[in-house]
Amino acid sequence: MLALPINIKKMSPQTITIIGAGNVGYNLTHALHQNGHKILQQYSRNPTRFEGLSNIVQSTTTDLSTIKPDADLYIIAVSDDAIQNVSNQLPKVQGIVTHTSGATTMEVLNKHKRYGIFYPLQTFTRTKLLEFSTLPLCVHSHQEKEITYLSNVARTLTDKVFHITDEQRAILHVAAIFTNNFTNHLLAIANDICDTKQVSFDILRPLMLETLNKVQQFEPRTIQTGPAIRGDEKTMQRHLNLLQETPHYQQLYQVLSNSIQDMGKGS
Amino acid sequence: MLALPINIKKMSPQTITIIGAGNVGYNLTHALHQNGHKILQQYSRNPTRFEGLSNIVQSTTTDLSTIKPDADLYIIAVSDDAIQNVSNQLPKVQGIVTHTSGATTMEVLNKHKRYGIFYPLQTFTRTKLLEFSTLPLCVHSHQEKEITYLSNVARTLTDKVFHITDEQRAILHVAAIFTNNFTNHLLAIANDICDTKQVSFDILRPLMLETLNKVQQFEPRTIQTGPAIRGDEKTMQRHLNLLQETPHYQQLYQVLSNSIQDMGKGS
Repeated sequence: MLALPINIKKMSPQTITIIGAGNVGYNLTHALHQNGHKILQQYSRNPTRFEGLSNIVQSTTTDLSTIKPDADLYIIAVSDDAIQNVSNQLPKVQGIVTHTSGATTMEVLNKHKRYGIFYPLQTFTRTKLLEFSTLPLCVHSHQEKEITYLSNVARTLTDKVFHITDEQRAILHVAAIFTNNFTNHLLAIANDICDTKQVSFDILRPLMLETLNKVQQFEPRTIQTGPAIRGDEKTMQRHLNLLQETPHYQQLYQVLSNSIQDMGKGS
Repeated sequence: MLALPINIKKMSPQTITIIGAGNVGYNLTHALHQNGHKILQQYSRNPTRFEGLSNIVQSTTTDLSTIKPDADLYIIAVSDDAIQNVSNQLPKVQGIVTHTSGATTMEVLNKHKRYGIFYPLQTFTRTKLLEFSTLPLCVHSHQEKEITYLSNVARTLTDKVFHITDEQRAILHVAAIFTNNFTNHLLAIANDICDTKQVSFDILRPLMLETLNKVQQFEPRTIQTGPAIRGDEKTMQRHLNLLQETPHYQQLYQVLSNSIQDMGKGS
């Protein structure tokens, strides 16, 4: 992690334009508004997305060419594939142009004079506004003065502001895939496995919570349990037999168990 | 899930002997003691394991042949491989003999006249006593009267008491491996990936918590996000490239992404 610039100041309300009103854009608009900033404009291709936003933004638009150039900060929160295209369609603006993607280089914004990253590391949904005060926000830019500016805006939302490079952000995004997407998928499989024998998935919820509680306190590799790390081949074989009707789950069981054993040997 | 016997009564304190003082035995002894039961004896091969227990159990022993036959309930909480052996070494007892394993058939206890399952579905550690009141406890036996008895004891600890068959318990244990062991391993990998680029794993903790919070409310397969479910091949390829120094993580990334896509197609 890079050191943040020390030039931290209490920030006055900024004028901000949000491009995109999906899960991230929707949550950001609400959080920035709540913390005193003025949302000058909100863009979405899809006008139904403005629902729940019209009272807190000064104007909405479905036409990128109408974006006004005088906001302090532009945050592009659209799908990864669309960021460069959207950036290129923006008019010349005075403020700094940022995007919120973990997986996309900052350079897709290089048409603009001032650009950077404003990346909240969290999984968002439109239906549930998240509390930003405990959420990590990662910023980056080529210039120290822009990093300072983005950090100061970020700090109006959360104390957890990090300055990370493009390379670090990319690896963090991979780590986030393991943490969120892949974990969620394993839970989907657990749910599916329960369903095959009419066992309620609810019975596993306390185990999920305790799994996560433990990881908040300990390094996960130091608290690994189960048949794989114990080398309990008999139990693993029985589990593989139980999964014989779902060969893809069998394969995952095998690959993950091997991986646990490899990591155990390495430590 | 099977219906529980309806013959629920408020249970008077029972005399209970716990065989084993590892993570499960240690937690069970404390929980049963706190809820008014008398822990007649606690067995462990390893006398250092009695630390923290001597004030709440009537006696401790490192010799199975000294187990007294007059407890109401015997709970064998030893490693899966040792259960049958321990059960066979127990003297003839009046009470019902149970074990706490998700992965072991009830029949390993069939030397005894009365036997059954007393399976708390949770991950335990000795260093942290768990609250049992929200923890699922699964019971089973061949006889209705034993199921009723075990349910009544279980209900002194928690409201979440389930009657599940051996087959259901086996599949539940597999699902628990996905929920706990494999999830923990993915978090260990995320941690490792962060370390390679000097990014603090702490930055991912809020994401972990929100991932689990969401699963408390929704079915996990309905909230799957990320490049795999979106079919975002470009991002997946970039991630695979980023993982090229750790081919086993690359393989896991590929296998899990494929599995997410398979499940997505199936739904």
